[in-house]
Amino acid sequence: MQSAEAKFNKNSLLLALRRYSSAVCDMEQTILLPSLLRDVPSDEVWDCEAAEESCKDLYSNYLMLKAIRNTVESNLVLLDDHKAKNTALNKTLEPLLVTDPEAIFRFHLRGLFSVMSDLTKKTNSLTDKYMDIIGVANY
Amino acid sequence: MQSAEAKFNKNSLLLALRRYSSAVCDMEQTILLPSLLRDVPSDEVWDCEAAEESCKDLYSNYLMLKAIRNTVESNLVLLDDHKAKNTALNKTLEPLLVTDPEAIFRFHLRGLFSVMSDLTKKTNSLTDKYMDIIGVANY
Repeated sequence: MQSAEAKFNKNSLLLALRRYSSAVCDMEQTILLPSLLRDVPSDEVWDCEAAEESCKDLYSNYLMLKAIRNTVESNLVLLDDHKAKNTALNKTLEPLLVTDPEAIFRFHLRGLFSVMSDLTKKTNSLTDKYMDIIGVANY
Repeated sequence: MQSAEAKFNKNSLLLALRRYSSAVCDMEQTILLPSLLRDVPSDEVWDCEAAEESCKDLYSNYLMLKAIRNTVESNLVLLDDHKAKNTALNKTLEPLLVTDPEAIFRFHLRGLFSVMSDLTKKTNSLTDKYMDIIGVANY
C-alpha cells in the first residue's frame, strides 16, 4: 500500500495542513505578548457565538487560530462537535452521500484544502499586524 | 512543529484515509476477475453523470472506489475539479467562510472523515459480494 503521505505537491491536503501548523508556530514565536492584541479590532468580521462582544478583536482571532492548529495537529475528528453541525448543509448533503459519494468526497477534500489555505493567510496576516503594533517593520 | 501524522486514533482523519486505502487494496487483491461484476446490479443507487446506463452495476462501483483511492493516495486536490463544484452548497458556505472559518474547517474535517468511513464500508461490502458471486464463503 502506498502511503497517503508519500507525495507532496502545492495542491496537497497534507501539505496545506502542515503549512497551516507552521504558520501558527511562526505566529506564536513572533507574538510574545498576545495581550497587545486585545481590543484591537479585526479588519475581518469573524463571528463567535460564545463571546460576541470580545470576538472581533485580534486576540480572539489569535486564540481561534491556535485552537484550530491544535485540532489539526491532534488529527482528531470530534464526531459530536457542535461547531461542525450545520443542519441545513448536512440535509443538502445527505441525499448526495447515497447517490454520489465520490462528489461528496471531492467536495470535502477541496473544501478542507481551501479553508486551510485561507486560515494560513489569516495567520500570516495576524503575525504581520502584531509586527505593525509593536512598531517593527516586516520585510 | 509537531507532525500532523504523529497521533492516531479511531477518529483520526489520516487513519480513516489509510483504512480506506487498505480496504481498496484488499478489494483489488480479492477481485481477480472484475469483469464478473459487470451487469450485477448494485443494491445501492449510486449516480454517475457520464454513463447513466452502465452505472448501477457493481463494476462501475468497483472503478469508482479505485478512482477515489488513487486521489486519496496521490493526496492531490484538483482545484478545478468539476465533481467538487456544487454551486448551491458553495453559495451556502461562502458567507460562513468569512464569518466563521472555524465552523467551515470542522464541517469539512468531519465530512471528509464520514465519507471515508462510508466508502470503506462500501468497499468491504463490494469485496464480500464478489466472494458471494464466485461462491466462496466469506467468514
